[in-house]
Amino acid sequence: MKAYLDCYPCFFIQALKTARLVTSEEKVILQILKEVSLYLSQVSFDVTPSEIGRGVYLIISRITGVKDPYKEVKERCIRQALALYPELKQLITASEDRLMTAVRLAIAGNVIDFGTSSSFDLDRDLKAVLSQDFALDHSDDFRKALVEASKILYIADNAGETVFDRLLIEEIGRPVVYAVREKPIINDATREDAVLSGLEKVSKVMSSGCDAPGNILKFCSEEFFRVYRSADLIISKGQGNYEALSDEKRPIFFLLKAKCPVVARDLGLEEGSIILLKRGRNKKVLS
Amino acid sequence: MKAYLDCYPCFFIQALKTARLVTSEEKVILQILKEVSLYLSQVSFDVTPSEIGRGVYLIISRITGVKDPYKEVKERCIRQALALYPELKQLITASEDRLMTAVRLAIAGNVIDFGTSSSFDLDRDLKAVLSQDFALDHSDDFRKALVEASKILYIADNAGETVFDRLLIEEIGRPVVYAVREKPIINDATREDAVLSGLEKVSKVMSSGCDAPGNILKFCSEEFFRVYRSADLIISKGQGNYEALSDEKRPIFFLLKAKCPVVARDLGLEEGSIILLKRGRNKKVLS
Repeated sequence: MKAYLDCYPCFFIQALKTARLVTSEEKVILQILKEVSLYLSQVSFDVTPSEIGRGVYLIISRITGVKDPYKEVKERCIRQALALYPELKQLITASEDRLMTAVRLAIAGNVIDFGTSSSFDLDRDLKAVLSQDFALDHSDDFRKALVEASKILYIADNAGETVFDRLLIEEIGRPVVYAVREKPIINDATREDAVLSGLEKVSKVMSSGCDAPGNILKFCSEEFFRVYRSADLIISKGQGNYEALSDEKRPIFFLLKAKCPVVARDLGLEEGSIILLKRGRNKKVLS
Repeated sequence: MKAYLDCYPCFFIQALKTARLVTSEEKVILQILKEVSLYLSQVSFDVTPSEIGRGVYLIISRITGVKDPYKEVKERCIRQALALYPELKQLITASEDRLMTAVRLAIAGNVIDFGTSSSFDLDRDLKAVLSQDFALDHSDDFRKALVEASKILYIADNAGETVFDRLLIEEIGRPVVYAVREKPIINDATREDAVLSGLEKVSKVMSSGCDAPGNILKFCSEEFFRVYRSADLIISKGQGNYEALSDEKRPIFFLLKAKCPVVARDLGLEEGSIILLKRGRNKKVLS
């Protein structure tokens, strides 16, 4: 998904929010905004919002010297989600359709996102997503693909959401490669976050090599790319990964809640919609 | 009032909104946003938001060649307000406190503002402002100043709101100089808009010489400045004029609704508050 004009003001809203998380010095924050301005005046908008966002966050890190502004936020989210884990596990066990309950919870966990919103109500959102209709529902294809798949790649999104991913992976009950970001970017999950969330117990955790707030293939490692190319089922979580991968040809199932108007518009849906969307072909690509 | 960090993203929101009013060509809009970026990366933030906003709108005019993007919007707002005029006049006539009802209506008219919001509900806002408590209420000082004043200057804000100003000026029943912008800027009232609103019947309409979305003194004409310096009562309408004049020393009564979080914060009030606030001394300044 290419960047939209509406992304433009949003980059500044995100930069301001993140800068304030790192420093209270107004001069430093203004310097960040001005450098983001200069950067956006020069950057091509013929790329994904994730790619431009990566540049914005690199500016913040460079100016403040803080490499992981969301470190504490991420740890808090993971702890919060881990505390919910037993309750959520029981919810799945007691449900008639365990897989789809786990899918819905994995989407609900996607509400934990400081990139698009700084306030969220996890309890409220959990309940809403459990009863909300899918605006795009390829769950039959998903079930079928799961039965047939031998190599499953699960591309992670945010820290905290990781715990919800774990629940879904446990329901899938098959070997899964769980790909996380190479370095901290916003509240996206890194290896450290995945391990803290217990993902190593249920999957093979690997870095994608990418440090953008979306799994942009050109920034990924050759190792990840091999896994990506040979996977016969790819699960992509969240908006950032959708932005980065929506135009790709591989058999990707996108699980997300459309939390921003731009992504909702790109999907042709209303803001707040939840989707389990299949894109791409179900064939292996020879590497 | 100096620009706040939160103004930064807002300049882009405003630029995007205005650009879209003028053109649907995405390339042109992106060019505007990029030039606004470059401008904001260089401009001092030690000035008022109105001054920076002026630069933003000049970029839009220069790139698109459209000098008055809000021309149709302004005319529509004026017609809408004129249609309400008889009803509003009757409301004032029937009220116990005619002056304060007129003041409240003048503030309600201030909701007609495409600079801070593109959607408003005039009827709803009229009713709300008629019953809403003033968060800052210097109405006693205002009554007193009106009795004593021999030279009243009324600094206009938006087109459409102008009709509401006319009602207040009619209640004041004294000679008033009504100052408008020199050139079109957002939906701010120009001489043409004032005349269309019937202001020439009740006041002396003059241009302030200023083409910013706020009456910034350094951009005003010498003629306006003489009127400004010799006035013993100045009425300033709206946020833009507050931004431009809030640190000045003249006896200014600010009538506005705090429509954006930044102005609300500067006033130490909640968003949506209405005020009749006196600032400055009540003495003439020798020119």
